[in-house]
Amino acid sequence: MAPHPIEAITSPSSWAMVEDKFSPYAKETLAKLIAFVEEEVIPAQKVAHHQLPEGEDRWKTVIPIIEELKVKARKLGLWNLFLSKTQYPKHGVPLTNLEYAVMAEVLGRGGPMASQAVNCSAPDTGNMEVLAKYGTSEQQKQWLVPLLDGRIRSAFAMTERFVSSSDATNIRTSIKREGNEIVINGRKWWISGAGDPRTKIHIVMGKSDPNNSNVHQQQSVVLVPADAPGVTIVRPMRVFGYDDAPEGHCEILYENVRVPLSNLVLGWGKGFEIIQGRLGPGRIHHCMRSIGLAQRALDTMIQRVTDPSRKTFGKYLHQHGTVLADIAKSRADIEGARLLVLSAALQIDKHQAKGALKEIGIAKFVVPSMALQVVDRAIQAFGAEGVSQDQFLAEAWAGLRTLRLADGPDEVHIRQVGQRELKRATHLVKKAQESKKREEALLVKHNIKTSL
Amino acid sequence: MAPHPIEAITSPSSWAMVEDKFSPYAKETLAKLIAFVEEEVIPAQKVAHHQLPEGEDRWKTVIPIIEELKVKARKLGLWNLFLSKTQYPKHGVPLTNLEYAVMAEVLGRGGPMASQAVNCSAPDTGNMEVLAKYGTSEQQKQWLVPLLDGRIRSAFAMTERFVSSSDATNIRTSIKREGNEIVINGRKWWISGAGDPRTKIHIVMGKSDPNNSNVHQQQSVVLVPADAPGVTIVRPMRVFGYDDAPEGHCEILYENVRVPLSNLVLGWGKGFEIIQGRLGPGRIHHCMRSIGLAQRALDTMIQRVTDPSRKTFGKYLHQHGTVLADIAKSRADIEGARLLVLSAALQIDKHQAKGALKEIGIAKFVVPSMALQVVDRAIQAFGAEGVSQDQFLAEAWAGLRTLRLADGPDEVHIRQVGQRELKRATHLVKKAQESKKREEALLVKHNIKTSL
Amino acid sequence: MAPHPIEAITSPSSWAMVEDKFSPYAKETLAKLIAFVEEEVIPAQKVAHHQLPEGEDRWKTVIPIIEELKVKARKLGLWNLFLSKTQYPKHGVPLTNLEYAVMAEVLGRGGPMASQAVNCSAPDTGNMEVLAKYGTSEQQKQWLVPLLDGRIRSAFAMTERFVSSSDATNIRTSIKREGNEIVINGRKWWISGAGDPRTKIHIVMGKSDPNNSNVHQQQSVVLVPADAPGVTIVRPMRVFGYDDAPEGHCEILYENVRVPLSNLVLGWGKGFEIIQGRLGPGRIHHCMRSIGLAQRALDTMIQRVTDPSRKTFGKYLHQHGTVLADIAKSRADIEGARLLVLSAALQIDKHQAKGALKEIGIAKFVVPSMALQVVDRAIQAFGAEGVSQDQFLAEAWAGLRTLRLADGPDEVHIRQVGQRELKRATHLVKKAQESKKREEALLVKHNIKTSL
Amino acid sequence: MAPHPIEAITSPSSWAMVEDKFSPYAKETLAKLIAFVEEEVIPAQKVAHHQLPEGEDRWKTVIPIIEELKVKARKLGLWNLFLSKTQYPKHGVPLTNLEYAVMAEVLGRGGPMASQAVNCSAPDTGNMEVLAKYGTSEQQKQWLVPLLDGRIRSAFAMTERFVSSSDATNIRTSIKREGNEIVINGRKWWISGAGDPRTKIHIVMGKSDPNNSNVHQQQSVVLVPADAPGVTIVRPMRVFGYDDAPEGHCEILYENVRVPLSNLVLGWGKGFEIIQGRLGPGRIHHCMRSIGLAQRALDTMIQRVTDPSRKTFGKYLHQHGTVLADIAKSRADIEGARLLVLSAALQIDKHQAKGALKEIGIAKFVVPSMALQVVDRAIQAFGAEGVSQDQFLAEAWAGLRTLRLADGPDEVHIRQVGQRELKRATHLVKKAQESKKREEALLVKHNIKTSL
Repeated sequence: MAPHPIEAITSPSSWAMVEDKFSPYAKETLAKLIAFVEEEVIPAQKVAHHQLPEGEDRWKTVIPIIEELKVKARKLGLWNLFLSKTQYPKHGVPLTNLEYAVMAEVLGRGGPMASQAVNCSAPDTGNMEVLAKYGTSEQQKQWLVPLLDGRIRSAFAMTERFVSSSDATNIRTSIKREGNEIVINGRKWWISGAGDPRTKIHIVMGKSDPNNSNVHQQQSVVLVPADAPGVTIVRPMRVFGYDDAPEGHCEILYENVRVPLSNLVLGWGKGFEIIQGRLGPGRIHHCMRSIGLAQRALDTMIQRVTDPSRKTFGKYLHQHGTVLADIAKSRADIEGARLLVLSAALQIDKHQAKGALKEIGIAKFVVPSMALQVVDRAIQAFGAEGVSQDQFLAEAWAGLRTLRLADGPDEVHIRQVGQRELKRATHLVKKAQESKKREEALLVKHNIKTSL
Repeated sequence: MAPHPIEAITSPSSWAMVEDKFSPYAKETLAKLIAFVEEEVIPAQKVAHHQLPEGEDRWKTVIPIIEELKVKARKLGLWNLFLSKTQYPKHGVPLTNLEYAVMAEVLGRGGPMASQAVNCSAPDTGNMEVLAKYGTSEQQKQWLVPLLDGRIRSAFAMTERFVSSSDATNIRTSIKREGNEIVINGRKWWISGAGDPRTKIHIVMGKSDPNNSNVHQQQSVVLVPADAPGVTIVRPMRVFGYDDAPEGHCEILYENVRVPLSNLVLGWGKGFEIIQGRLGPGRIHHCMRSIGLAQRALDTMIQRVTDPSRKTFGKYLHQHGTVLADIAKSRADIEGARLLVLSAALQIDKHQAKGALKEIGIAKFVVPSMALQVVDRAIQAFGAEGVSQDQFLAEAWAGLRTLRLADGPDEVHIRQVGQRELKRATHLVKKAQESKKREEALLVKHNIKTSL
Repeated sequence: MAPHPIEAITSPSSWAMVEDKFSPYAKETLAKLIAFVEEEVIPAQKVAHHQLPEGEDRWKTVIPIIEELKVKARKLGLWNLFLSKTQYPKHGVPLTNLEYAVMAEVLGRGGPMASQAVNCSAPDTGNMEVLAKYGTSEQQKQWLVPLLDGRIRSAFAMTERFVSSSDATNIRTSIKREGNEIVINGRKWWISGAGDPRTKIHIVMGKSDPNNSNVHQQQSVVLVPADAPGVTIVRPMRVFGYDDAPEGHCEILYENVRVPLSNLVLGWGKGFEIIQGRLGPGRIHHCMRSIGLAQRALDTMIQRVTDPSRKTFGKYLHQHGTVLADIAKSRADIEGARLLVLSAALQIDKHQAKGALKEIGIAKFVVPSMALQVVDRAIQAFGAEGVSQDQFLAEAWAGLRTLRLADGPDEVHIRQVGQRELKRATHLVKKAQESKKREEALLVKHNIKTSL
Repeated sequence: MAPHPIEAITSPSSWAMVEDKFSPYAKETLAKLIAFVEEEVIPAQKVAHHQLPEGEDRWKTVIPIIEELKVKARKLGLWNLFLSKTQYPKHGVPLTNLEYAVMAEVLGRGGPMASQAVNCSAPDTGNMEVLAKYGTSEQQKQWLVPLLDGRIRSAFAMTERFVSSSDATNIRTSIKREGNEIVINGRKWWISGAGDPRTKIHIVMGKSDPNNSNVHQQQSVVLVPADAPGVTIVRPMRVFGYDDAPEGHCEILYENVRVPLSNLVLGWGKGFEIIQGRLGPGRIHHCMRSIGLAQRALDTMIQRVTDPSRKTFGKYLHQHGTVLADIAKSRADIEGARLLVLSAALQIDKHQAKGALKEIGIAKFVVPSMALQVVDRAIQAFGAEGVSQDQFLAEAWAGLRTLRLADGPDEVHIRQVGQRELKRATHLVKKAQESKKREEALLVKHNIKTSL
């Protein structure tokens, strides 16, 4: 029996766990999305690759076939799927976090191009959420509408060089009011999307009140046009040799950049509040895309080890016990991680991101490491081809490795989850005391004496 | 806010994934079961411990407080919960595998005593299923009814000494017809429950037709009364240093044991069919009990590391970063594994055990290793106390370690899952070929030439 | 070619690394020891097992065959090999730490009985060192001489219940002077050897000056005869179900125990100094014994998986790729760990234990985990037999697991090693600055400008 | 006390294990090499980086500062250190494998530039060995002499696309005699050094007798000038995103390439013999370079986590317990692996590569994984900077990952080591039988009966 199209992508058993939580609209959209990614996006990747030139021109290119795919996707209703109607009634689509999580896996499987084709690429997704939630109608008109239309792209400028910015209180970029203007000075790096010629707006976080006794009210967020005087793209950062052109992850210098007061977002000292609101669901999307990537790596590995033209030491690859074990473990690893992320998405639907921080934290530190291991096993099965440009595996590995650092390194999330677990101590101690009392009563009743 | 009683045991996020799949009856039963285990069973464990004497008398004892708990449990309707009404309409309860799986976790948390108190102990559970499914009405009357009543216990005699019995075709015990009798000769070991004075029946598997060309039709199963002449309990096997009295895991000698022909189960050569039917759901129950144990170990560890009387090198235990990391990872490990088992249980509900072999296999090799690691971390946090008789941890570890061997060692399940994954290759290759065709068409259309 | 007898036990490649550091005496002694352990000790283990009765009598037994072995060993010059002539000229043997380390591996392979047979058992070894180093001649005459003769045994009472005694400053047992007597009050546990009928002396550490501002001068050590009034052996502690009779690891109550002033060791407030001196080399001995055990587990596993009577799924066990991989990894793990311990032993020879703390710490946290994994793989290859009393593996595992806690848990040693590594920072920074200067000069010379 | 210059690079404790095996010449050379790498090579790396242009010119460049370093090195007597005088009396230096192994670690620390500066770069090292061992005097004059002089470079063309060439019998490139010429046709890839403008010679392995019943006599090796008609460098392969220009790892097409008969090496059908001889010591060199890299990663990590300008959540990085644990484990991992490789090098010195295959195999599969983990931990400590071009870590990781595939993937070496371990079974069984006999005699003597 041919697998159900949806099952072919996610997994029959994970799907069974959530299917009854999907609306008819979500099911239909998912089926369309799968078909679109499999039949339109993946076959277009080689063309896209050839449409990106070598050398400096890489940074000046809008890849034509992606723009064509965007038109198709929008016609199919596959557009801005990340933006929840519940939270953003004006622009959003009626999908829950759980429903979108499954779609994010499909997008992850299709690579960055898939997310772009349906206008669901980071960092634009988070940026649109910021503008939708906190932007003035003027700000929305100028930046949100073209972003929702996929006409421009955007950057989110938080991480700084020379500073441990996983702890955001360490940030140094200065944001000062001077008359009717805001003046920005600072050096940021790892600013995704900043290299793209379509990127028109930077959402910049910095310190506007560095002496405020409340360390979470020192920061503000401002909108900086990409072409404002004083904005210099210093260089693209490389990730294991990859530059990810044309988007890139750039080092940027802001030198006496001036924007009007109306470019402030939400209010002075609201920077922390804004980035907090931006983080939860985005992490789940990253996780599900990673799972899509891991699943694709496993699928590719299965094809490789069953390739009838590959024999070593008298055996097909899949006949080596350790290869078979790698496959079984990868399948188990993916299934477990997928269920963890879906469960976190469901918690967000039920209790908002704030009420799901433990589940989000777990997903955030479990999934990238899991996916790295699955991809690494696939690389090993491919031999040298696995680390090369002829397979997607090495590039996928590099991207996933970065996820163990981006949006907070593993250590931060492990700490956070550990500390939340410790909060259960009070309840556990109380239960243990009650149990002890009953135990003692029973010992007395049965006339049993114990030492100590 | 006090956690929901159910959430306190399972986990809020896992529970959210399955809550809407629970019937009102199941929810009510679960709540009762949690209360019963927490308030009645756990506080009674020390009394039970004292009611078990030292020395040889350990093997002759029926622990009084467990019998009292059985009476209470039955009154509460907490009885034979493992036996599905759908499959066994006459004796079963209306619980799905998924619903019972959650209850098995609660039972696992309560230790072996909890399962006994509600008449859901292995190997009786599997044995009752065999008798309910394959037994004649005479066999059922004689053995199934008292088992269902909790009046007697039973053993399942399959594993053999000197033989790699993880591959059941290696079994050597001889089962022969002689006139109107069946004669059994063989040496079994690791026969759980055989040491118990209440055990009245052994379900014995052996070879009745060792030359049959079909290796799966060489075996038969017969019912052997525990007190039949020729049955000798040679010795209890120890698991690490534990003997698990009074049930034990015994070595048994069957020497010219004779039973009437009517003690044959299902028919000659049906031995393999019978054990196959016995395995699937039982493995899931073991897994969920293991998860209950792992969760209890984590809870105990949290209490230990937050104990205000324990400070080393100027810090409370929980302030050491590695301890906190251990707790976070344990939480994540348990959550992921729990979801995997619940998902396997759901697959059994949807497609029978036969249609869920991959999911069962994954659960079977993932869960014991996971639980061992969680328990090991808790042991480490407890110091020497952790390996001693003053905590449940060392004994739990020993039992879990055995699960990596019982019902097929990890290796067998990993192989099985790997081979099932390989079956996806055909579908994957077909999809890849279709994608390649579309890719080629696009390359032609865009006038791009590629080497090779 | 038959392997050299020595190579058969250690490993040819590790042996090659140290052979030229062995004196002729050490080589000869090693050869004799190997023959003694292989030909005398190991074949006697079953007899010893039968000479130890069941039940309470276990604690009252001096196993005859071990006493016979002791006589043989002493005649062969295999006696008190642990006691270095350099440090203890009067009683010691002319072996370096490195030389004895290799012998400790041989002893570890032979099990606890081997160490007893040559009078090299913990805790006696460390206790003899304490008495030889710090004892008065009166104390030595009374206790050291019979210990060196193997006529009595001894206990070292440091670890306390209800206290995190991995940080020795937490100890609470009270040691007070009253006139010409010392009065001891406290509760200790995990006191190895205290159950043995031959144990005549406890070396007890406690607090004599709990208010001393120097937390390392609050402790003193006194000698307490095992039969002194007020000494109660409360119970044996169990390690994963094992009681290790007759020696045991006991809980002991000291209630108003009175000993003469002359039983004080070294001086008031010298407790910390004494235990510090006791620790270094002893840890290396434990490690090497563990390596002997791990090597024996691997050897046993190799025999099992090549057993021609064991076939599963049409293959011998060793034909399964994962089994072969387990064997290769175990071999590599053992080799690497063995070299680490030998290297630490050599550091002790060169720089005393004080100058080898990093190397000792590394060995201490690496070896037990390594050995546990090797033994665990062997258990898995043996199936259920591996966890039972029919193989040495489960008991070995339990003992090794305790080593991750005894003499400081892994965490303490990991911390210590990490902190010592950090001390290299100063040197590294200096080197990096010098390198930077040269780099800058070269950049200037080649007329290269760099940003930043 | 300032560390001994040698200790600063290797490690005091490993050094102590081998110091007495070093000749005075080797000690002096090592000291000079350390100074040269630290003071000349490492400070020159930034200049070299700037001397390598962007774009296509990368492949046409001879980096001037490396040529300067080569002149300096040769004057210092630091030249061709890899070539053993014992094996190659005419051209070699008087260093053992063990001595050179320690130097290879120093070179690995200095990066690829260090190896080039002293003319000890792969694949030239192995190629020079092939020419020195198997070349005719004519071949040596033409190719070996300029290679030994560092005037040209070379490539070794074995690995093929579309073929599982970890099993060398799968190779397809055709080598045919036609009259007085040899004609080569085939497609190779991952040919290191082939991109370099200085590379003048390819040593090509192919099939000259594909139907020979002895699969190890089907292959021959020929010398192919890099500029021979029909040789096309198709493209550089990338390792993750790195192209390793100017050397590169290239795909090469050999189309009807014709060379004179005198370019055959050793004889027809001798291909396998040649590559076998090439492998052993080279693997050890790779391993020691990897250890140098791992040690450098750890040193860099220590500097980072003690950087007083980096604080997160109120703590310096090194105050986080998990960071400290990572450092301690990395130190232990490096030490153990280093000793394993040194021990393998010593075995080669004692028993030739053939007699050290198990030790070489262990080093080959242990070291790259170990180094990857150490580098990965350092990356994690550096945050995003760790994956970027601003640190050497990501590039080091990519290179090390390839080592798990190059010269045989891990799996091949694990299998080989496992199979060699199995050969010990015969000896172990014999010993066990002897022990059993003694045991039985003792049981009889002590009048003990055992069941079974």
